[in-house]
Amino acid sequence: MADLSLLFPIIILIITSTTIIFTPPTLASQQLNHLSSNRAPRFLSKHSYSIKTQQEEQQRYKYESKYFYQQLDHFSFLNLPKFSQRYLINTDHWAGPERRGPIFLYCGNEGDIEWFAVNTGFVWEIAPLFGAMVLFPEHRYYGESVPFGSREEAYKNASTLSYLTAEQALADFAVLITDLKRNLSAQACPVVLFGGSYGGMLAAWMRLKYPHVAIGALASSAPILQFEDIVPPETFYNLVSNDFKRESTSCFNTIKESWDALLSEGLKKNGLVQLTKTFHLCRELKSTEDLADWLDSAYSYLAMVDYPYPSAFMMPLPGYPIREVCKRIDGCPNGTTILERIFEGISVYYNYTGELHCFELDDDPHGLDGWNWQACTEMVMPMSSSHDQSMYPTYDFNYSSFQEGCWEEFGVIPRPRWITTEFGGQVRKILITLLFIFIYS
Amino acid sequence: MADLSLLFPIIILIITSTTIIFTPPTLASQQLNHLSSNRAPRFLSKHSYSIKTQQEEQQRYKYESKYFYQQLDHFSFLNLPKFSQRYLINTDHWAGPERRGPIFLYCGNEGDIEWFAVNTGFVWEIAPLFGAMVLFPEHRYYGESVPFGSREEAYKNASTLSYLTAEQALADFAVLITDLKRNLSAQACPVVLFGGSYGGMLAAWMRLKYPHVAIGALASSAPILQFEDIVPPETFYNLVSNDFKRESTSCFNTIKESWDALLSEGLKKNGLVQLTKTFHLCRELKSTEDLADWLDSAYSYLAMVDYPYPSAFMMPLPGYPIREVCKRIDGCPNGTTILERIFEGISVYYNYTGELHCFELDDDPHGLDGWNWQACTEMVMPMSSSHDQSMYPTYDFNYSSFQEGCWEEFGVIPRPRWITTEFGGQVRKILITLLFIFIYS
Repeated sequence: MADLSLLFPIIILIITSTTIIFTPPTLASQQLNHLSSNRAPRFLSKHSYSIKTQQEEQQRYKYESKYFYQQLDHFSFLNLPKFSQRYLINTDHWAGPERRGPIFLYCGNEGDIEWFAVNTGFVWEIAPLFGAMVLFPEHRYYGESVPFGSREEAYKNASTLSYLTAEQALADFAVLITDLKRNLSAQACPVVLFGGSYGGMLAAWMRLKYPHVAIGALASSAPILQFEDIVPPETFYNLVSNDFKRESTSCFNTIKESWDALLSEGLKKNGLVQLTKTFHLCRELKSTEDLADWLDSAYSYLAMVDYPYPSAFMMPLPGYPIREVCKRIDGCPNGTTILERIFEGISVYYNYTGELHCFELDDDPHGLDGWNWQACTEMVMPMSSSHDQSMYPTYDFNYSSFQEGCWEEFGVIPRPRWITTEFGGQVRKILITLLFIFIYS
Repeated sequence: MADLSLLFPIIILIITSTTIIFTPPTLASQQLNHLSSNRAPRFLSKHSYSIKTQQEEQQRYKYESKYFYQQLDHFSFLNLPKFSQRYLINTDHWAGPERRGPIFLYCGNEGDIEWFAVNTGFVWEIAPLFGAMVLFPEHRYYGESVPFGSREEAYKNASTLSYLTAEQALADFAVLITDLKRNLSAQACPVVLFGGSYGGMLAAWMRLKYPHVAIGALASSAPILQFEDIVPPETFYNLVSNDFKRESTSCFNTIKESWDALLSEGLKKNGLVQLTKTFHLCRELKSTEDLADWLDSAYSYLAMVDYPYPSAFMMPLPGYPIREVCKRIDGCPNGTTILERIFEGISVYYNYTGELHCFELDDDPHGLDGWNWQACTEMVMPMSSSHDQSMYPTYDFNYSSFQEGCWEEFGVIPRPRWITTEFGGQVRKILITLLFIFIYS
């Protein structure tokens, strides 16, 4: 069974209806507090501005980059500076206004929009079949679409970051597309939304909030239910762990046992030096937590990009990369230590091309990226790791310490109940319950 | 035919659908610029804090007043002071959580919520039949629900007024009801929205934006289509004028001719003194515009409250008050001047009880109320008066001078296209066109 089916369940928001079909959240992970200092659920932004579009991909997907002046705050009338939002556009196959050619709008995620544009082949592939225009607006505060003139100014403090929210981003999309359609006399052209991961959440929410703007949405891997009291907080780590378990129980067990091995190695005299060697790190390891964090991320990202074909979205990887990781872990000769096995496995993620001779643990030392802010304000996604089903260390999400961390980092108090109030989620739970009652009665 | 049918067309937002049935806007009028200095479309706020709840009404409608702490800005994370929102609640007839007793939520308008509570008999009358809880949350910046500690502070400048928007008010309602339901373990109890005039717009928009919060909405006299490019700007004045015309053509003509009579009288030597006498004003008239404004408002308000039964919502009035106005205008003895006739007619509105011996033209000399701010920011409702169909002076809405006025008064630039982008409206126009094509083909 292809991992794709588990990791990329597609939420189709049926045209003329706002019903959202339930799907288990698949993206986003959370750092394990006793091993790591990060708290934000893991999305894509860590890589979102370090990976640059490759020449080859740019030739494959052709688009123009354009810019649109946006209100910084759509929902208040403070006298704030406008900002320039980038959007990529391709009209090569568009049937035009007279023939009501549709507009395919990809909801930009937490990163440089070019990265998402060249990694969303589906939209490009189907656009010619529908005579559709392709539009990739960038999400505010990411890529080139930063307010206050520079990334430094925009990310300066809680006050300048204040307008980095999903609602504002949706309003950006709505204002942009409305204006664009007016300018092209294309008011009658239907808009269909696309999005994956956080961009998928935006697509689903936009269909809900702006039914007059978009007639449908295709939301892929969009964890719109990964919020307080909707799904069990263990869901994400259980799903990731299961991706490894179904490839190989011994692989799952090796990873599950590795955390203790890691901790006890780190506690030994010269343990950090030894770990530095075992994991071929470029600089001497400062704490076991940093290494655990590095491993943890790799497993979560592997599950997110466990495509059945070779890909290079996060990293250059073979098809079914988790299968490959487990092959390496399980395939070591007898007598190989747990940690050596883990290194062999993790190299599939961090060094599949074999180009690297040593590893840098963190390419974003500040950790102060936009996604952390979003996770500390409205995108509060509680994630725990269960003792039995997860291969990660056991961890219980603790809201108080989460809130404390956000206050320390940004001087902001999270609003953990806001997203479900604004976009719903609870109602679907009830519907699903009813559905199950119906099916089993 | 009862005027009610024209003035209170009911928009029923059908359960499980977000389709909004088209209805011509009926409420809200606009000052005629060459006669008046006000620019905001006329809603109810002028009277909203001057009329106090009467003892008798308080006994008829029983409720508790409660308070709830709200975020000042739901859509950003600036460190702003919370404010206390008042809401009125009655649970006398509520069937409770176990029996899923519904919650009837009236969306508070631009005024003191008690005024709307005691004038919305319908909700009170049907609540016992449905075993429903009755809830009247107050709109932010009105009545007692003002931020920044006092009305003076809240209305100080564009910066403090910045958070007085419809979207923020809807979010207030959503947060309040979600919290209330959680506290009462009433998550499964359906919420049905009610609202009239601006409150009706809020009810319709809330059903659209928060389908997971409310399963239906009854929006009465809600001019959700009275925005740029949706309905002809002459619609409102034409409707009001028609209310007078169908009672009596001569009444309509007398009013239509009165503006020129007023202007020429005012230009005469001692003309203002003469007008002061004719209209029994308490203070000497300073400009003809002030008087025209006073008359203009009365006609518009009369159309808004042209109920078939006696009422005291805006003023104490008989049933069918427009019929009564026209009777007085037409019934004057031969030789009565146009302006004397107008005075007789207008007295129905301003002095039906006969208690007043002279009239104050303006009880709100500042004009700086919340509705003016809303009209100068997002609630930009273009209204013109046509030469032929309207009994008001001819007037063409001019956006540039409107914008200038808003800048002068508040230091704010309106966003005339925002409401239709955020809440739609254009799509319905297309649907209606299609419907007509379907019907007539």
